[in-house]
Amino acid sequence: MTNFQRARSEEQRAVRRQAILDTTAAMLEEMPVGEVSLNELSRRVGLAKSNVLRYFESREAILLELLDRAWQQWVADLPALVHAGVDQGAPVSRRAEQFAAVIAASLAGRQVLCDLLSAQAGVLEHNVSLQVAARYKRAAVANVADIAALAHQHLPELGASAPQLTAAMIMAVGAVWTHARPSPAMLSAYEADPSLTAFKLDFVTTLQEMLATLTAGTIARESA
Amino acid sequence: MTNFQRARSEEQRAVRRQAILDTTAAMLEEMPVGEVSLNELSRRVGLAKSNVLRYFESREAILLELLDRAWQQWVADLPALVHAGVDQGAPVSRRAEQFAAVIAASLAGRQVLCDLLSAQAGVLEHNVSLQVAARYKRAAVANVADIAALAHQHLPELGASAPQLTAAMIMAVGAVWTHARPSPAMLSAYEADPSLTAFKLDFVTTLQEMLATLTAGTIARESA
Repeated sequence: MTNFQRARSEEQRAVRRQAILDTTAAMLEEMPVGEVSLNELSRRVGLAKSNVLRYFESREAILLELLDRAWQQWVADLPALVHAGVDQGAPVSRRAEQFAAVIAASLAGRQVLCDLLSAQAGVLEHNVSLQVAARYKRAAVANVADIAALAHQHLPELGASAPQLTAAMIMAVGAVWTHARPSPAMLSAYEADPSLTAFKLDFVTTLQEMLATLTAGTIARESA
Repeated sequence: MTNFQRARSEEQRAVRRQAILDTTAAMLEEMPVGEVSLNELSRRVGLAKSNVLRYFESREAILLELLDRAWQQWVADLPALVHAGVDQGAPVSRRAEQFAAVIAASLAGRQVLCDLLSAQAGVLEHNVSLQVAARYKRAAVANVADIAALAHQHLPELGASAPQLTAAMIMAVGAVWTHARPSPAMLSAYEADPSLTAFKLDFVTTLQEMLATLTAGTIARESA
């Protein structure tokens, strides 16, 4: 095979991989992670399932790569949002509240990221090889480190606890997302019984409260 | 039907329901929630699947009832543990740390409760009727209220935020549980790459940190 042919083949491979990722991303805009099947994905991308599996080892491997991309995109957008939303001259308690508000608001329009974050440990990290698991974990560690550095820049009072706070925040995003997406039965129950309606969680409001509490708690414990 | 016959039939129903619950509980000691199938459960309890479904409307309805029972058992055990583990004469920051440590330690041996809590919103509240969803939610609200009252008794500094803290703690339990149960692939990745080992979470340690941070943050924000 000449170099030209190999390059073209490499390029074709990259195009196919991108088509698979883009198609999966489009499906995630329509349906939750749990409903994205390899069968439907193959049909939409116009490849045999066996052919899709020559580009990615499993459905979960595709979703982990999408999660990393969505996470990186979010990390890239955050500095400008935090800079605009956190008043550097404000006292620490005020900055902590503002930081939590910016992070929660920045996730309001990122359903796919939130859905994938909520599924990462329990679903996506299963049915992949050691290599894919390790590559994803390294990427996740880097994403957490980027957010921790940003948090520390605006809240130096976090001291050495910024990475731990960030990891807790990511777990909180997944948990609040899951709890703020009630099942159809629970939605009907909320509607039928006004005494239960108070327990129907709004994603951004609940997340903002939990992130503000985690941030304030980290600072309080750091200064204790 | 005479009253005697009706009573005996009611009693038999209760015995059957209890057998189904006990068998499911035993299965959960052996396998994660996701692997508990109605087929295997029916086989073990010695009833046809259609017969099991005359006692509970779905697999999820059985699991929700088990979750409520495990949760109530935990709530019943907590007061003595908190009383023994939290020093009433200590300053608030110390009591907050002790409270988090007691709660985290009390969950160390309660795998079934943790597993069911982690599955409640995303899995268990699906595939049930409005009635079962509402009954479960009312029970969960009561369980949260009991823990909130206990928290407030030992940490009056929580003020009106004890229920919100408790709800956040329950979400944290489910999230940390899921993240502290790595997939086989991720376990291999941790073993193969020492730089990743630091990200392998220990359930009780990680939970204790997150609960302590939530508690300290709630108190800090309450007093702000």
